[in-house]
Amino acid sequence: MTSATTPDTVAVVGLGAMGRALAARLLDTGHGVTAWNRTPGRDADLGVRASATVAEAVAASPLVVACLLRHSSVHETLDPVAGRLRGKALVNLTTTTPNEARELAGWAAGHGIDYLDGAILAVPDMIGSPGAQVYYSGSRAVFDRFRTVLDAWATSTFDGSDAGRASLIDLAMLSGMYQMFAGFLHGAAMVGSEGMSATDFAARATPFISAMTDGFAGFAQVVDGGDYTVAGQQSLDFSDLSDIVRASEEQGVNSATLAVVQALVSRQIATGHGSEGFARLYESFRARAVR
Amino acid sequence: MTSATTPDTVAVVGLGAMGRALAARLLDTGHGVTAWNRTPGRDADLGVRASATVAEAVAASPLVVACLLRHSSVHETLDPVAGRLRGKALVNLTTTTPNEARELAGWAAGHGIDYLDGAILAVPDMIGSPGAQVYYSGSRAVFDRFRTVLDAWATSTFDGSDAGRASLIDLAMLSGMYQMFAGFLHGAAMVGSEGMSATDFAARATPFISAMTDGFAGFAQVVDGGDYTVAGQQSLDFSDLSDIVRASEEQGVNSATLAVVQALVSRQIATGHGSEGFARLYESFRARAVR
Repeated sequence: MTSATTPDTVAVVGLGAMGRALAARLLDTGHGVTAWNRTPGRDADLGVRASATVAEAVAASPLVVACLLRHSSVHETLDPVAGRLRGKALVNLTTTTPNEARELAGWAAGHGIDYLDGAILAVPDMIGSPGAQVYYSGSRAVFDRFRTVLDAWATSTFDGSDAGRASLIDLAMLSGMYQMFAGFLHGAAMVGSEGMSATDFAARATPFISAMTDGFAGFAQVVDGGDYTVAGQQSLDFSDLSDIVRASEEQGVNSATLAVVQALVSRQIATGHGSEGFARLYESFRARAVR
Repeated sequence: MTSATTPDTVAVVGLGAMGRALAARLLDTGHGVTAWNRTPGRDADLGVRASATVAEAVAASPLVVACLLRHSSVHETLDPVAGRLRGKALVNLTTTTPNEARELAGWAAGHGIDYLDGAILAVPDMIGSPGAQVYYSGSRAVFDRFRTVLDAWATSTFDGSDAGRASLIDLAMLSGMYQMFAGFLHGAAMVGSEGMSATDFAARATPFISAMTDGFAGFAQVVDGGDYTVAGQQSLDFSDLSDIVRASEEQGVNSATLAVVQALVSRQIATGHGSEGFARLYESFRARAVR
């Protein structure tokens, strides 16, 4: 196990909204920060040591934290200084897909850079607060060595040596969140068609939908058990969503997002799985053949 | 205001899983129950007074509760006894669409029956527990007069004289729930493609998704305010879901349900709303033209 280190200064590359929040939190917790941003002046009110070049920033610390716009920005910014990163730790908090994270890990390995990918489950305002989470995967050595720095930002979880895994878990959670958000706005439009305010709808939907997340564990148990016929589940036949789709359309409300879920339910029923539980839909996502 | 009454007996028509739960709860709370079910024998272990015919059941009480399979079952069961229902209260807890509830309210009015439609937000096991909710709309007089009976089952809410409104709100909430469930199972399939168990995913997703329901109120405020440009929101440009869709497809996971949400986001961005908040998607649901 690598022994934990607190570097004198942390190099932060990228001072967008999230990069600024990360740098500010490091300063608040007594760390030194040397920072670079493509557009100068973003550091003005932060109190970090500003670098005129990326090379100057990365030279200041054994730990380089990148928080840039996208995958391509990481290459544009760090390719020119790859030689100067040799032997250093690179923690990349730029949002990437799993394959992009894996590509960057390969690039880093080729340059002798120890790479840790991070996926932030928080908005900038949440950095340093109890609810913030960051998932990491890639170099365990970097995770262990700089744990004090990482823990200043959020609850840190290490998800294994595959650099793409943290991003995969993050995107999977966000998929659930965005589909829920879409479902809420669809429901709000349904009741809005009869003059009910979205605020009144939110007052009912928030506790209800929140409580229904308790169902995830039951679905997961069925999925992991591999037997969708276990007793005690509400059947797909009973979860036929065509009434809701029809009601939405009768109210003049676009049912597109719900209709796709209904299509998956219908397909499962048509292929003989109507008496099985809703968790069966996992197979619609997993298997290309069932699409 | 109608004064509240507790009838000597309540007529329950339909003893499926939900009808049985409703009848059992009435017995537990000291009400008499006379019940009929199409298939005889469903009452055997319940302790209700069984009727051989629907006519006999409805004759036993001023309050008739119907909990049947679907809208058409209500007509099949009650049309032949419509004359005997004149002057009585009919509380219909059969799952219907808003328009089906409105049709039944019209039918009831034509026969001099006082009609209250109810939408149950609970599974049968929850009837009588603190978490159970039933929304009602239609006759306020029935709601007030038999409130003691209704409150035995769940927290009762009256949603106005439009008989379809309780169903509309119920279906809108269920739309949100089912889209969230689909999002969870999609996310579970994403991480499952790399060998993470659904149970491990649920352990992370449950608190995260539950906490994210707090965002509904903010979306609702923007929707009701009618100005999607207000500051402090995460922009649609930033909520572009194409990375998640791509990551899902690269993992071999069907992205259909998320891709439809992404298509709505893309359309809003393409029509110049990229700098507005996610709540803007409300307009994609509301307006046919934006589809």
